[in-house]
Amino acid sequence: MRNILVIGSGKSTAYLIKYFLEKSTTENLFLTVGDLDINTAEKLLDNHPNSKAITLDVFNEASREQAIKAADIVVSMLPARFHIEAAKDCLKYGKPMVTASYVSPEMEMLDEEAKAKGLVFMNEIGVDPGIDHMSAMKIIDDIRDKGGKMVLFESFCGGLVAPESDNNLWNYKFTWNPRNVVVAGQGGAAKFLQEGTYKYIPYNRLFRRTEFLEIDGYGRFEGYANRDSLKYQSAYGLEDVKTLYRGTMRRVGFSRAWNMFVQLGMTDDSYVIDNSESMSYRDFINSFLPYSPTDSAELKFRHQLKIDQDDIVWDKLEELDVFSPTKKVGLKRATPAQILQKILMDTWTLDHDDKDMLVMYHKFGYELDGKKHQIDSTMVCIGEDQTYTAMAKTVGLPVAMATLAILNGKITTPGVQIPINKEVYTPILEELEDYGIVFHDKNVPYLGYNPLNV
Amino acid sequence: MRNILVIGSGKSTAYLIKYFLEKSTTENLFLTVGDLDINTAEKLLDNHPNSKAITLDVFNEASREQAIKAADIVVSMLPARFHIEAAKDCLKYGKPMVTASYVSPEMEMLDEEAKAKGLVFMNEIGVDPGIDHMSAMKIIDDIRDKGGKMVLFESFCGGLVAPESDNNLWNYKFTWNPRNVVVAGQGGAAKFLQEGTYKYIPYNRLFRRTEFLEIDGYGRFEGYANRDSLKYQSAYGLEDVKTLYRGTMRRVGFSRAWNMFVQLGMTDDSYVIDNSESMSYRDFINSFLPYSPTDSAELKFRHQLKIDQDDIVWDKLEELDVFSPTKKVGLKRATPAQILQKILMDTWTLDHDDKDMLVMYHKFGYELDGKKHQIDSTMVCIGEDQTYTAMAKTVGLPVAMATLAILNGKITTPGVQIPINKEVYTPILEELEDYGIVFHDKNVPYLGYNPLNV
Repeated sequence: MRNILVIGSGKSTAYLIKYFLEKSTTENLFLTVGDLDINTAEKLLDNHPNSKAITLDVFNEASREQAIKAADIVVSMLPARFHIEAAKDCLKYGKPMVTASYVSPEMEMLDEEAKAKGLVFMNEIGVDPGIDHMSAMKIIDDIRDKGGKMVLFESFCGGLVAPESDNNLWNYKFTWNPRNVVVAGQGGAAKFLQEGTYKYIPYNRLFRRTEFLEIDGYGRFEGYANRDSLKYQSAYGLEDVKTLYRGTMRRVGFSRAWNMFVQLGMTDDSYVIDNSESMSYRDFINSFLPYSPTDSAELKFRHQLKIDQDDIVWDKLEELDVFSPTKKVGLKRATPAQILQKILMDTWTLDHDDKDMLVMYHKFGYELDGKKHQIDSTMVCIGEDQTYTAMAKTVGLPVAMATLAILNGKITTPGVQIPINKEVYTPILEELEDYGIVFHDKNVPYLGYNPLNV
Repeated sequence: MRNILVIGSGKSTAYLIKYFLEKSTTENLFLTVGDLDINTAEKLLDNHPNSKAITLDVFNEASREQAIKAADIVVSMLPARFHIEAAKDCLKYGKPMVTASYVSPEMEMLDEEAKAKGLVFMNEIGVDPGIDHMSAMKIIDDIRDKGGKMVLFESFCGGLVAPESDNNLWNYKFTWNPRNVVVAGQGGAAKFLQEGTYKYIPYNRLFRRTEFLEIDGYGRFEGYANRDSLKYQSAYGLEDVKTLYRGTMRRVGFSRAWNMFVQLGMTDDSYVIDNSESMSYRDFINSFLPYSPTDSAELKFRHQLKIDQDDIVWDKLEELDVFSPTKKVGLKRATPAQILQKILMDTWTLDHDDKDMLVMYHKFGYELDGKKHQIDSTMVCIGEDQTYTAMAKTVGLPVAMATLAILNGKITTPGVQIPINKEVYTPILEELEDYGIVFHDKNVPYLGYNPLNV
């Protein structure tokens, strides 16, 4: 029996655990899931004979070390900032490790020692980051193998609601951490490369400089720029590309409507509103509008943002009931962002029967034989229910597959790494297809920038 | 002879030094001016017999202590962050102190000891802060003395170019630190009180929510909100007012035009542009606009901000030559704000013969005998030349007057303080009138909020 320790049994672990349990007999696996709350772990394990749930506090050194010592490999599904304690124990006791999180500077510092000890420390192998790395590198490597030279790479990803559950005017519901959605894009200008020059978009323009993306069978989406478009430029070997852009996908019209909140300052997370608890939603809206003894909040809102009578963004606002004089914020000393999140969660929370959807869109531009070519590659994954979500599937399955591949000696290159090497992405992308996570590639005329999208 | 030590002989000290020298015989004053660069001090002292210039590095403990020990009172005209060393020596050697700067937390901590030793540590007695405190408190105290209850206080101040030197389309030139102008309003939402409710304006809306102000004989101005409108609420005893607003004054149209830079992200000071040195002004502008192989930066700019063909803001842009393909930024690894400042300084620097102008506008709303009343109080000060500027006059004269009043035992209340007490403001406001710094008060119908200004 090979012992797998999974630390954390939150939202994104349902598929991961299911995968291990299904393979436990053929692959001789014994799965231990540790969580502060043993109940969530027990529920997912459902008394499977090749498993046990344990109470595990990652900050309790003794129990953490004991669990890690007993494992052959450790999967940490905790929030990123909690990985490092487990990672140090893995080094100490010679255990490989897998996470779906961004490589933190602290994790990066373990690289040398992990290499020295021959241990694979695989990170960023969930989704955005994860499947995006693998699917992009597969095509980039293919292009290079046939002698092509990359000139453009754009990559978009979005967590959305599935078409069959898409029943609000924003075409959006929260499928992941709502807070990240509310503060998305804050903290500095978005920087990217467009035809050889650096371009910058400040936060207040971010949601007005989107571009459209079409996925066969799923219709039209839009993308806005991430702050960190250049983050993987050297990891992907794209130092010489002319265009490099990473973005977030939403349904068409979301960004233009979201921009209303940005413009009025309702997404600000940097100060608290003293009397927030007793405020009505309408009071909250009014804090961002000039005083008037007679004019309505509605008219002031329309006037501030110059919203025409027949503009659909207005209906989106009303759907959220933001002008309600009776609904109370009910949060003590909350920031505008926290209050807005509360208001949105009234409307944007997935219903019991709702399914989520994860979409990805890559564009690869390259030169070959003196000509420019473009490949567009798309993936859509739809969740089954509220436990087996698309998010849990796309995050959990590649983590699980990488874990087993490491155990089985199929991924051997040691060190702190992300899944950009053939050894890693080839088998995992193939296996993901068995689970319905399939990329569709097509050759399209090279467009590069979008000349109609000034 | 009473010995006055002035530390620093920068831009704002010309009038201050002139005042002391003119009074030196009748008041038995000997003036020592210490600066890192003795030449600037010597130039302002012009070999006056009751004075000497010394080289003084405020971080050189020995020479600083020696100079402070020899003085009867110390005036620090250094940037605010450098006061504290001198202030500690003043406590040690029992010398009163005067600065024109905001009371820092470090300075505030000396309050108890200054009180125990009977020392006056007067701060914020220049302009904004300074003359604004004094002129406001005079009228607030008058209103209270006659039984009125304050319900509204708005206060605006601006450093501008004098009408006779006002020859550009922005009606603006730099009369003080240009950097502060470029980054003005950044770092958080502006917060103020309007008819009993807190209002918030995010940076990206700040320059579009101005109000107009008219000064007899000088025409129309506009004001945008400061971040800290509530800062002096308790110091002024205005806990119960319904409306409290502090703002910055510009000529009409400045803010709407400035907003173009804000919207495109050109005032951002939070990141550097790697290749800034070799960029042309046009390249800089283009970094904030989408790529196009054919469309001009001009059209992209107009389109992004929806600027009509006949909108005067366009001429303001062109006056700055921001689209020049030949003028180079020439600054290494500069932030957008630093680059914009460079571009603006080409056009907005005062010419040799230019005069500056300082304007102030207070509105006081109060209830008396069951009725609402309003007093508007305005002040305009115009500089003489580039040494004896309005800024140097309004900053330096009240500092000098307070210094002499402390020496003469007319200001005696000890402690770290700002000029909000009658003992301080009455004699100084009177004496300022002799120097042409005069407030004009008039009773106007109570307006409160501006109902036309939604």
